[in-house]
Amino acid sequence: MALKFEILKTSGKSRLGKLHTKHGTIDTPAFMPVGTCATVKAMMPESVAATGAQILLGNTYHLMLRPGADLVEKMGGLHKFMNWDKPILTDSGGFQVMSLSGLRKLTEEGVSFSSHVDGKKFFLSPEESIKIQHKLDSNITMCMDECVKLPASHDKVKKSMEMSMRWAKRSKDAFVDRDGYGIFGIQQGGDYEDLRRYSAEKLKEIGFDGYAIGGLAVGEGQEIMFKVLDYAPELLPEDKPRYLMGVGRPDDIVGAVLRGVDMFDCVMPTRSGRTSQAFTARGTINIRNARHREDPRPLEAECDCPLCRNYSRAYIHHLQKCNEVLAVMLLTWHNIRYYQRLMAGLRAAIADGRLQEFTDEFYKKQALGDIPEI
Amino acid sequence: MALKFEILKTSGKSRLGKLHTKHGTIDTPAFMPVGTCATVKAMMPESVAATGAQILLGNTYHLMLRPGADLVEKMGGLHKFMNWDKPILTDSGGFQVMSLSGLRKLTEEGVSFSSHVDGKKFFLSPEESIKIQHKLDSNITMCMDECVKLPASHDKVKKSMEMSMRWAKRSKDAFVDRDGYGIFGIQQGGDYEDLRRYSAEKLKEIGFDGYAIGGLAVGEGQEIMFKVLDYAPELLPEDKPRYLMGVGRPDDIVGAVLRGVDMFDCVMPTRSGRTSQAFTARGTINIRNARHREDPRPLEAECDCPLCRNYSRAYIHHLQKCNEVLAVMLLTWHNIRYYQRLMAGLRAAIADGRLQEFTDEFYKKQALGDIPEI
Repeated sequence: MALKFEILKTSGKSRLGKLHTKHGTIDTPAFMPVGTCATVKAMMPESVAATGAQILLGNTYHLMLRPGADLVEKMGGLHKFMNWDKPILTDSGGFQVMSLSGLRKLTEEGVSFSSHVDGKKFFLSPEESIKIQHKLDSNITMCMDECVKLPASHDKVKKSMEMSMRWAKRSKDAFVDRDGYGIFGIQQGGDYEDLRRYSAEKLKEIGFDGYAIGGLAVGEGQEIMFKVLDYAPELLPEDKPRYLMGVGRPDDIVGAVLRGVDMFDCVMPTRSGRTSQAFTARGTINIRNARHREDPRPLEAECDCPLCRNYSRAYIHHLQKCNEVLAVMLLTWHNIRYYQRLMAGLRAAIADGRLQEFTDEFYKKQALGDIPEI
Repeated sequence: MALKFEILKTSGKSRLGKLHTKHGTIDTPAFMPVGTCATVKAMMPESVAATGAQILLGNTYHLMLRPGADLVEKMGGLHKFMNWDKPILTDSGGFQVMSLSGLRKLTEEGVSFSSHVDGKKFFLSPEESIKIQHKLDSNITMCMDECVKLPASHDKVKKSMEMSMRWAKRSKDAFVDRDGYGIFGIQQGGDYEDLRRYSAEKLKEIGFDGYAIGGLAVGEGQEIMFKVLDYAPELLPEDKPRYLMGVGRPDDIVGAVLRGVDMFDCVMPTRSGRTSQAFTARGTINIRNARHREDPRPLEAECDCPLCRNYSRAYIHHLQKCNEVLAVMLLTWHNIRYYQRLMAGLRAAIADGRLQEFTDEFYKKQALGDIPEI
């Protein structure tokens, strides 16, 4: 296959791996920050790399609207355009068409929609999505699929999943195989084990470089998500990376790694950076809260990001109150760094055979809550 | 005196100097980026330092309102609070009280006003302003003065200037002398030579570490400003730094250096970074303009800032269209770097005795306008 995946060690269902691409290697379990419009919001790409992130996710829907895939291709591809020389994964655009665009019409052929930016009409099919992702020069192309909001009936989920599997075949057929590039299939089937099994079989027949678990984190809650993850990852090939799309909060990620997932993406760390929320080992903190106003301590003493190394809580609180951009820049950096430290901790724990201790400690600390006021 | 100023070389009226403070040395002619609310908007302080800036300006008015001088003092002073270990100059707050606050009442004693943030009542006198600047740990404290908008009658400017001179004496008396810290007096007198002369004499009697030229760049236009600068700087002591407050555009600065000014501050480079305007050797460029949409070239080939080194005009244009924070971050960086390159160029030209060639070249290039479209 065009992407090489090595599993170095396992611990229970958890796996320590390396995924090799043309633009570099990704240590798994891995978290991918989201760079929707060819930028991770409020971050210089060199700062994103400094957090330890080894791969970014780009959104095909946003990029096809602005600046357009042809322009990105003309500019030498997404890596060069946005000054990020490490691996990039792009989604198919299908999910955002459903959640963001206007006037959608879905058929077996694909989906027609109007842009949320200027109302302009577009048509996206599996073939078109793969072509766009090729133009973007994405290292990991995602199949186009349909994603059903849960709860949904067995019949509804089955019909949708079956179409997604036909789309998976069309996606794979449209993909141009190149060394260091690959395409991932996406398992659907909602919270129905028989459908998840059927979907996995179909994807394996087609054959992919990696397999995503789709259709979760769509409103079903952590309990149902974990129930599905108790069986869904194992239905997929053991020797390929498994990617849980759009997940999630730190405790979602820890629970999913324990269930055999290797890759994650989520807007949580970046979006929270824009709403004063900071992720820490002791849970989330809202720095706008008045208790931080005169606090000379760092947000998190054990963190090595610029926010925690160089500033007091009082300063970040002040920046927030004044709506200063630097608050967003520093909080985003901290949050991405928090996620990367979490992933590095999980990888080290698997490597050292102490995953159980690591996750026990993780849950214990999260439950403590923030350090007491002075 | 508490601040040491050396003049290394002169060329006509222009001077190459070094101003030594407790937090480091400033090469003059110098441009000070503005860090209004204890942050240079959209910049990490290490990035500001990377542009070559050796000193920042902080705004006393904003800082006394938020987070308050007592809090900054408690946090170890402004340098520590905002993670900037180089010199800081603070204004007196007087100018912003007049331009930003509500419900002002000015008397000989000082000015009472209500905060533009929450309407809270404050009173600012020369003594109070100096005390606040002390708490902020400012290296260069500015006298409190009144600034009259031009054009204004001789009588009006005279009365105001005379009060400013009484305030200058009160400011100096309130200042606590410390090694590596200093206080600057501010010359007033509008565009009246006799008043500028009288003001300079009064300030010299009091004695300061440096002298600002105030009351310019208040709507009078470059022609009148340069007319005043043809005589005003020379009225001030030759062996002390001269600071033209709130100026200006690149050609204002070049013209003022030729007339013997050593220090400048202006929001222009930072504010323009937030409105898509970029300063270049060939004049200002609005990157939002459609002509940049598919332009693979850097904004300015000879610039070494991250924007010019790593990105195409097409990319910055794209970020702007999507209202991405990174556009503001990169444009602000570029603009501050442009100003610092200009100042470094002026200093090198004075040092090498080729100031005339340098300024000829500067004006010639500015008049060229942007590079032609591809």
